[in-house]
Amino acid sequence: MEPLYEGKAKRLWATDDPQVLRMEFKNDATAFNGEKKAQFEDKGRLNNAISTRIYAFLEKQGIPTHFVRTVDETNVEVRKVDILMVEVIVRNLAAGSFSKRTGMEEGTEFSAPVVEFCIKSDELGDPLVNDDYIRELKLATPEDLVFLRESALKVNGILGGFFADCGLKLVDFKLEFGRLASDPSKIVLADEISPDGCRLWDLKTGEKMDKDRFRRDLGGVMEAYQEVLDRVTSALGD
Amino acid sequence: MEPLYEGKAKRLWATDDPQVLRMEFKNDATAFNGEKKAQFEDKGRLNNAISTRIYAFLEKQGIPTHFVRTVDETNVEVRKVDILMVEVIVRNLAAGSFSKRTGMEEGTEFSAPVVEFCIKSDELGDPLVNDDYIRELKLATPEDLVFLRESALKVNGILGGFFADCGLKLVDFKLEFGRLASDPSKIVLADEISPDGCRLWDLKTGEKMDKDRFRRDLGGVMEAYQEVLDRVTSALGD
Repeated sequence: MEPLYEGKAKRLWATDDPQVLRMEFKNDATAFNGEKKAQFEDKGRLNNAISTRIYAFLEKQGIPTHFVRTVDETNVEVRKVDILMVEVIVRNLAAGSFSKRTGMEEGTEFSAPVVEFCIKSDELGDPLVNDDYIRELKLATPEDLVFLRESALKVNGILGGFFADCGLKLVDFKLEFGRLASDPSKIVLADEISPDGCRLWDLKTGEKMDKDRFRRDLGGVMEAYQEVLDRVTSALGD
Repeated sequence: MEPLYEGKAKRLWATDDPQVLRMEFKNDATAFNGEKKAQFEDKGRLNNAISTRIYAFLEKQGIPTHFVRTVDETNVEVRKVDILMVEVIVRNLAAGSFSKRTGMEEGTEFSAPVVEFCIKSDELGDPLVNDDYIRELKLATPEDLVFLRESALKVNGILGGFFADCGLKLVDFKLEFGRLASDPSKIVLADEISPDGCRLWDLKTGEKMDKDRFRRDLGGVMEAYQEVLDRVTSALGD
């Protein structure tokens, strides 16, 4: 059997229900648009466990997601969606590509969250664009962008508080959204929310607890992911 | 005597009036953030002649600019301004960095003009940013950005028609704005408008009549600038 789709960190498989797919978390880690690659035993399990808990938590807070149910340690069932080719990034502090682009020191707190849209394209390197670009590229309508921005800020509010309860600063994170295959008028949160796509800094020590440990060769990558999972689980009282 | 400021293509000099500066157009041509350099005899004269005519024309159409008066072939007097560190680009067709960033073929017509803001910084490579970035970098207020966007679109409307009268397609162009030193609440058009900062394609042949001739080694750079000046002069009935 072949997957319907294979990305850098996940595979999508068909199920008996045409509206439901199985999403498999791989152990592959990539950075810098796929230029840096590695495998981490347990990464698929950890990201699945973290993402599943966060998506279930967001659903409870009224954020619709693609999540259906856990299958096993590295697989979940998700509603079939057409992924929007716009990645939404929310930033609370300067870090990563924001700092590189602007020269603003990492760790600078923003007066209000920064929301940015990037084209979801490995080939183009997920470039930052503005709303006019997205209109001309027909990646989303202006109304979609209003919805994406509002949803992303709502998720930021919820997750910022949740990660603070975990002793973690939510520095920035990437969201992907999709239109439900069963009802394309409905846009839901898709993909995953894990230390692969969030910057999380320990509130006390400032230690990086996310993929920057891999990007910047800081070591202890899976130890950090496991610590994030432990804190998420504990904060949820699971 | 030393200039107050020397940029890649212009120098600014003090005059007897503290609210007025002399702007000198140099013969230097640069591209790719200063990586490619050349000198063209006559470039200063041609850009000064073109920019002066366009600024006088825009003033007549109700667009406030920094232009005061012509001094000689390569010098104008301009009102002293504090330049906003935001460059405003208006695009009517895909070209240049838009096409490189998005993969959209050069020459694709847009459904509506694309306006983009870049940080004015040679060091950072004039990166594209969005409104949230500009707010956090304190380069301009949200109200300033509304004004810049509206002004840029108004200029696009005026210049699009004007260049069509010259047999030229206004593909895209860059604007810079400044706050009047005498009244910082007033933002006016500054810098220059010339084939250095505009893409202009011959309406009949599609031939490039702008700095892309230099960037892409097409030859006939100054011949094209002279042709633009001749057509601008003729369209104005000068």
